[in-house]
Amino acid sequence: MDDRPIGIFDSGVGGLTVAEKVFRLLPRERVVYFGDTARVPYGNKSLAALRVFASEDAAFLMQHDVKAIVVACNTIAAVALEYLRERFPVPIFGVVCAGARRAVEVTRTKRIGVIGTRVTIHSGAFVRAIKARMPDAVVHSVACPLFVPLIEEGWTDHPVADAVIAEYLGGLRTRDIDTLVLGCSHYPLLAPAIARYLGPAVTLVEAGEVSVLELRGQLEGAGALRESEGRPEHRFYVSDLSPNFHLIAASFINGGISRVEEVSPEAISAAARQRLQRGDAAL
Amino acid sequence: MDDRPIGIFDSGVGGLTVAEKVFRLLPRERVVYFGDTARVPYGNKSLAALRVFASEDAAFLMQHDVKAIVVACNTIAAVALEYLRERFPVPIFGVVCAGARRAVEVTRTKRIGVIGTRVTIHSGAFVRAIKARMPDAVVHSVACPLFVPLIEEGWTDHPVADAVIAEYLGGLRTRDIDTLVLGCSHYPLLAPAIARYLGPAVTLVEAGEVSVLELRGQLEGAGALRESEGRPEHRFYVSDLSPNFHLIAASFINGGISRVEEVSPEAISAAARQRLQRGDAAL
Repeated sequence: MDDRPIGIFDSGVGGLTVAEKVFRLLPRERVVYFGDTARVPYGNKSLAALRVFASEDAAFLMQHDVKAIVVACNTIAAVALEYLRERFPVPIFGVVCAGARRAVEVTRTKRIGVIGTRVTIHSGAFVRAIKARMPDAVVHSVACPLFVPLIEEGWTDHPVADAVIAEYLGGLRTRDIDTLVLGCSHYPLLAPAIARYLGPAVTLVEAGEVSVLELRGQLEGAGALRESEGRPEHRFYVSDLSPNFHLIAASFINGGISRVEEVSPEAISAAARQRLQRGDAAL
Repeated sequence: MDDRPIGIFDSGVGGLTVAEKVFRLLPRERVVYFGDTARVPYGNKSLAALRVFASEDAAFLMQHDVKAIVVACNTIAAVALEYLRERFPVPIFGVVCAGARRAVEVTRTKRIGVIGTRVTIHSGAFVRAIKARMPDAVVHSVACPLFVPLIEEGWTDHPVADAVIAEYLGGLRTRDIDTLVLGCSHYPLLAPAIARYLGPAVTLVEAGEVSVLELRGQLEGAGALRESEGRPEHRFYVSDLSPNFHLIAASFINGGISRVEEVSPEAISAAARQRLQRGDAAL
């Protein structure tokens, strides 16, 4: 048994959908969540910047003595997962591998769609991860940059959402896919509208949920589940606490979050520098 | 005469609409532009974070020996303009005062609308600035958080843009305004669609253009215009150079930008720290 918490980070609040999956699937585990809300969104930024951000986010979680890290941000999982694994000595789970694996399991026609931010899609990470497991799969991927702002505006059940979905996914409807990977931690909130548009023949894969299932398997296999009785205490950190944080958080987590702590971007950078000086990892 | 350049900063690329106004209205002047693309957008972040960002952005421009600063970011102009003026020894122009002044000049019915990001609108800065000049004005303001992502997606002439405009501005149509302040540096790109929706009875005020006119007045009055012959050389800096920067820049500036330099967020913070150590300003 291992009572240390599970670390989850994301560019912002979207990863709370992954935290919520941990609460449901691993109800005894403690969670330390970090959302880099001072630098959100990650989806349009450069690879060099994303590696710095990813290292800093993971180093911050390591300061809280986490036993594993879930990279809830698909953008980071797509472009910097190996980079993190080489630098941090705990199991690191990315939503991209999990989503790809699940898509390969559920497709019958081998025609798979993937949607995500611009960086995630342009990285080609989902296509590679799917083809590595199913070389004859036909994968169609579409960047949907407006989905995140739409969701953060709360317009998930709204005519504008339907219009934006039709614009981005119109092409996919003609491709005969039977499986669609929601390649961004925000997208589960748009899932009902997307399912309505694509119809019942298309199965939606929530990458976040699958990565939590894989995390559970790893912890079980390693005998590293938390076994202490008593309600687990979670910690939530963000790099910038904006006035509408709680409003958005409540749409992600049933009942919302009672308490969130702000940590300055400087403290995040300092965590990464400290690791470097201690020689824990070459950041 | 004063050959030093004019500094312009914004949270991202939107302020290029202001740079473009300088090129047209002050064709001899040199411009140093800084877009904080690593931390864009500013519109949903906290006041504390915004003051740090604003100080760092201005300190970076001061390193380039600018003679004046235009704060192209309405969010910063709304919440941190006085903060900057107390700390930096050059004239600082904000788009909020300029936009408010112009709105008061053009309205006939004293019924004025203002649109901007969530932070800009919630700050109440435009309402205060308008009422200070026209106490009996009736001001209706609306936050339009989806406009910036829509514009960055290039959907300015698109059915989705029309639907989003109708959703945000539907209330304004019933308020009988005759003037609308576009309180965000991105919004001029949506001006044609907004004008179509609101009709010819409503005059649109581009705050960025007005602030450049005021800057011109100040430089003329102080005898500080650049008088050197020869084509002025401009410099463009961003804190993160994403792959689609040039695409977006081209939609803001006729002919696009031939060369842009990347400067790390660490260098931006260092510029602010240096000023502090030199005792130039209490940041």
